[in-house]
Amino acid sequence: MTKFKVLITGDNAEVAEHTEKFKKFEESFEVVRDHVESKEEFIENLQTLHSDVAAIWMADSKLYQYGGPNAFIDYFPPSVKLFCFPWVGYDSIDGPKLRSKGISLCNVGSASASHVADIALYLTLSAFRFTSFFEHSLRTHGEFGPSRVVLGSEEFHPETGLPVIPKKKVNLTRGVRLGGKVIESPGGKTAGIVGLGSIGKEIAKRLQALGMNVLYNKRTPLILKEKEEEFYRPLKYYQKFDEMIPNCDLIVFAVPGSPETKHLINKDSILKVKKGVRIVNIGRGSAIDEEVLFKALDDGTITSVGLDVFQNEPKIDKRFLNRWDVTITPHMGSTTTDNLIDANNACIDNINDVLLNNGPGISLVN
Amino acid sequence: MTKFKVLITGDNAEVAEHTEKFKKFEESFEVVRDHVESKEEFIENLQTLHSDVAAIWMADSKLYQYGGPNAFIDYFPPSVKLFCFPWVGYDSIDGPKLRSKGISLCNVGSASASHVADIALYLTLSAFRFTSFFEHSLRTHGEFGPSRVVLGSEEFHPETGLPVIPKKKVNLTRGVRLGGKVIESPGGKTAGIVGLGSIGKEIAKRLQALGMNVLYNKRTPLILKEKEEEFYRPLKYYQKFDEMIPNCDLIVFAVPGSPETKHLINKDSILKVKKGVRIVNIGRGSAIDEEVLFKALDDGTITSVGLDVFQNEPKIDKRFLNRWDVTITPHMGSTTTDNLIDANNACIDNINDVLLNNGPGISLVN
Repeated sequence: MTKFKVLITGDNAEVAEHTEKFKKFEESFEVVRDHVESKEEFIENLQTLHSDVAAIWMADSKLYQYGGPNAFIDYFPPSVKLFCFPWVGYDSIDGPKLRSKGISLCNVGSASASHVADIALYLTLSAFRFTSFFEHSLRTHGEFGPSRVVLGSEEFHPETGLPVIPKKKVNLTRGVRLGGKVIESPGGKTAGIVGLGSIGKEIAKRLQALGMNVLYNKRTPLILKEKEEEFYRPLKYYQKFDEMIPNCDLIVFAVPGSPETKHLINKDSILKVKKGVRIVNIGRGSAIDEEVLFKALDDGTITSVGLDVFQNEPKIDKRFLNRWDVTITPHMGSTTTDNLIDANNACIDNINDVLLNNGPGISLVN
Repeated sequence: MTKFKVLITGDNAEVAEHTEKFKKFEESFEVVRDHVESKEEFIENLQTLHSDVAAIWMADSKLYQYGGPNAFIDYFPPSVKLFCFPWVGYDSIDGPKLRSKGISLCNVGSASASHVADIALYLTLSAFRFTSFFEHSLRTHGEFGPSRVVLGSEEFHPETGLPVIPKKKVNLTRGVRLGGKVIESPGGKTAGIVGLGSIGKEIAKRLQALGMNVLYNKRTPLILKEKEEEFYRPLKYYQKFDEMIPNCDLIVFAVPGSPETKHLINKDSILKVKKGVRIVNIGRGSAIDEEVLFKALDDGTITSVGLDVFQNEPKIDKRFLNRWDVTITPHMGSTTTDNLIDANNACIDNINDVLLNNGPGISLVN
């Protein structure tokens, strides 16, 4: 039997060729590669060299230098049954168009979930405990003193962004504070997770281990089996975002980018949050209107935020850079060796399913 | 019945006077205060004003300006039955001497455990994922690019401490690396906790939620009841530190300061760790010989560390300041509003137990 052809695009930097699984994959398929040197050349290659490929594995972000996958779908050969890539987000890919051509669109499903959830947990801890500030302070001064004298501070300096040393001794038990923002423990507090897909579930498990009470907002509630198997304690379901948020000391966004998730935090919903809420976002920057966010951080409606994603990434708003009621990471939820291997394996699983088993794809998203 | 007198020492900055519990405490006892303005004055006060106090509540670190509690034990009035304080560490207090005078020494027991464990978790996540570096990079540059181009870097610059941008494109799936140090997820890896007291147990629960396999080293193993009630999965016991560490991808120190815990990481034990181990310390800085630590970080024996405690705190070794295979926080395990309340409540519980119930103290340490 002739082997199916699989096209791997990009600089292939993120294909785990050294793994046993990849070696077996290379035996099962005829693997061809295209470094995508220009838009025109790649379009021509799709119609000539690659005219009989059965699957396209977009192995890195190279295609996005030329408009992303959408710029090429019209030129995909009719033999293509699957388009897959080693990450989660697919809001930039025209799924309906692929489906209309009979092409399955597959992301990595739950392969990245635990890795991304770890970053959500990190941001949660920093949002409650202001660890980012304390590390910055210690690295700057080389001793504990300066990060002690700011405990009880009631404001951040408008220019330096640093907490202003209080003039007199403060009774800290009324609240250890940094620039007026209270330093708290997550234990015993309530978290609401927006989007309880594979990543949201892993986040829920971690927040429960901190002793948090966990709520979730999702189009449909979990089924009983999922509830029993995956969590240490029951999670409370809210069908409506606006009804969940007044109960939350922490809101964690784990939603993909879509018209429905755009600006969930906006000038109306911000009026409904519990005063002093903390917010973590590891899904898509578009979920939060950053103008509303800065205003709410300034007036204390929001105590602190931890963000791995931003509205205008890969650039970020300059106002984030020297304020310490924010913890910011550069969209690194899946930046770990383990994730790259897991995501590669997920691509191979999808290719095997579609091409060898005539399946729809293990982690079909369109 | 005459009320017992309780002496609260220090500037009382950390006494939660606003809580209902404290108000009730003030009704049950005659509360007297001493700001400890000088060593001589306090000694005189102990023998005059305070000659009939039944308990001493050291409410903040003020006594340490004059030699700590040990400088005053000889002058404690014979009426004293309890010496307590709102934190965990007591290695600077002469417990045997207090015991010989019939005085109970009480810390806060498990009241701080979850708060300290949260910082251990934070340091663990940063040690695996290098989040501290990535935040620093994002704050410095205001965009993602510079923290992407260093992925795959094989060395840190000897002067700036920053990872050196690799000259050619690297196959990242063989390991996302920062300065030659591999970025990994904790899930699926093995952690060994040294000291499984109340803090160690809370750490174990959190590391299990990350998907880690957890080992522990302690003088005596947990009893079955503790095992079943507190953990999501069984923990494996090692009586000997040296036998546990070859199995660990992460070693977490949660031990108090004592001659037995001094320099557990030393030039001999470092030969027994698994190559590339990560280390977290939230117990006492004395557990690690920092000279051995720096050498092992440099030669790759240790991949990364997360430290909340240091050998010479409150100052820290300058070599920590601009290296990014370390995450450092200024002994802030219990710096949270919730902990201050919990610790105050623990002091009150101890005073009630010893003075009202003739008990030994809820969280007796000597």
